[in-house]
Amino acid sequence: MSQKILVSEVGPRDGLQSIKAVMPLEAKKAWIRAEAEAGVREIEVGSFVPASLLPQMADTAELVAFAREIKGLNVVALVPNAKGAARAVEAGVHGMSIPFSMSETHSIRNVRKDHLAMLAEIAASAQIAREASVHFAVGLATAFGCTIEGAVSEDAVVRLAVAAAEAGAMEFSLSDTTGYADPAQVTRLVRKVRAAVGADKLTTLHLHNTRGLGLANALAGLNEGITTIDSSLGGLGGCPYAPGASGNLVTEDLVLMLNAMGCDTGIDLERLLEVRKILSAALSGEPLYGFTPEAGLMLDYPERIAR
Amino acid sequence: MSQKILVSEVGPRDGLQSIKAVMPLEAKKAWIRAEAEAGVREIEVGSFVPASLLPQMADTAELVAFAREIKGLNVVALVPNAKGAARAVEAGVHGMSIPFSMSETHSIRNVRKDHLAMLAEIAASAQIAREASVHFAVGLATAFGCTIEGAVSEDAVVRLAVAAAEAGAMEFSLSDTTGYADPAQVTRLVRKVRAAVGADKLTTLHLHNTRGLGLANALAGLNEGITTIDSSLGGLGGCPYAPGASGNLVTEDLVLMLNAMGCDTGIDLERLLEVRKILSAALSGEPLYGFTPEAGLMLDYPERIAR
Repeated sequence: MSQKILVSEVGPRDGLQSIKAVMPLEAKKAWIRAEAEAGVREIEVGSFVPASLLPQMADTAELVAFAREIKGLNVVALVPNAKGAARAVEAGVHGMSIPFSMSETHSIRNVRKDHLAMLAEIAASAQIAREASVHFAVGLATAFGCTIEGAVSEDAVVRLAVAAAEAGAMEFSLSDTTGYADPAQVTRLVRKVRAAVGADKLTTLHLHNTRGLGLANALAGLNEGITTIDSSLGGLGGCPYAPGASGNLVTEDLVLMLNAMGCDTGIDLERLLEVRKILSAALSGEPLYGFTPEAGLMLDYPERIAR
Repeated sequence: MSQKILVSEVGPRDGLQSIKAVMPLEAKKAWIRAEAEAGVREIEVGSFVPASLLPQMADTAELVAFAREIKGLNVVALVPNAKGAARAVEAGVHGMSIPFSMSETHSIRNVRKDHLAMLAEIAASAQIAREASVHFAVGLATAFGCTIEGAVSEDAVVRLAVAAAEAGAMEFSLSDTTGYADPAQVTRLVRKVRAAVGADKLTTLHLHNTRGLGLANALAGLNEGITTIDSSLGGLGGCPYAPGASGNLVTEDLVLMLNAMGCDTGIDLERLLEVRKILSAALSGEPLYGFTPEAGLMLDYPERIAR
């Protein structure tokens, strides 16, 4: 397989929102610029939530304006509701996504909205997106299980995805917010949701590595035709409202796997590894994760990617 | 899939041989007994190398005698050569395996024997095994790449596997001694070696998690019909002669993945997690690895494994 795979960097949003420190705007810009220069083609630069709730995200509009100037970069942001969607469109995003938690308990705790209220926000956000010709995705959060409710029914995920499609979602991602997914579940759920909403509408997985299964889950998704995988440089991040759900997929390890497998990510891993220095300098004391940065590349890495 | 998968615990051999501390015999016995009680059905209890080279393995014969008394446990050991094979048979192993490094440079550094000399040891060991009706496997070490030579040709692996089969190998494992494997390579190499020696003769993968790809590689193997996967409790171990090649697959994370996927490992993960305490107590200061022990099981784990 020399298939094109899009690695979507979510560190500036999912990573930074879950740590206490606020990264200075200039450091965020340097991070985004450096990742784009390493070949990353999509970055979720922040979220349009009230700055009073997440001060780490207060400069998202400025980051969108900055990132839009980088040629070839798809600039996306998270929006919690229609109000956020309007701000995102005004800031000039290429795309936005709204998290829709499959666990209603998690939804209420996270954004104080039940499923019906969220579907109304999705419909309103979708209309804003359509009018502005902006891409609009719905992230099916806690799709693989919830740290509060436990199991999340696969039939419920399918039903809610269909409802969101009817409300105007252009695309979906399956999101393992809690690090509960296993590879067999990824295979099943990707198939079921694709059968319900159309294969072209489910292209993305958002995985966490909470129990070490992140890359195996990504592989299960690739085997089903998934073409976009979210990850976070240095494995920064998690969900502040889902206790114990820490640790995004590590971009460095994901890119190693994909590049070594012969997938076309367009990312220069050696340059990407250098970007960690920006994080270390700007977030002193914050732990960074990843096996590849510790072990280094295989001696024959250049031969592998030239295959 | 509710397919039977054998998790073969190699910690008492691969784990202990790579650390400086020598675990007392009684702690090793407690470890082996506790893992068997948690449902582990095969344990590599040690290796028959000269005690002067690896003092950690000096009590392997006593451990074999001890482990043989545990009902339902398959007791295996590593042997470096025919002399070791004779000692293993004398001690009463059910099975033994000899590492055969696909990288000739690694073979010479590791056991001071080139490929021809190793094939002679394999032939002599196979004869000893046949006469004693003991299972005899050849581990195709550094099959996915070498930290000294770099790339290892897949054609060479196939050729050497065929030569080892002709010398009397009853079965093979593909061993990622160096943590170089990627999932696409696992798929390719399993297919090629199986095509050359017969699918029934390649059932085992020995993987390291050096670059975080261990479980993804295991999944790739499962998808090809691999039914035995080696791992080490707490991720202890690595290869002392392959610099930078640290970190076996973590048994706890592997069992979580397999059990959650609905594979039948026969292992009670909650009991297995308790066994770590024996390692912590006996190897104070030695780091233990694993994501699952940190994060704990998913809330719905009991429902997942009952599926």
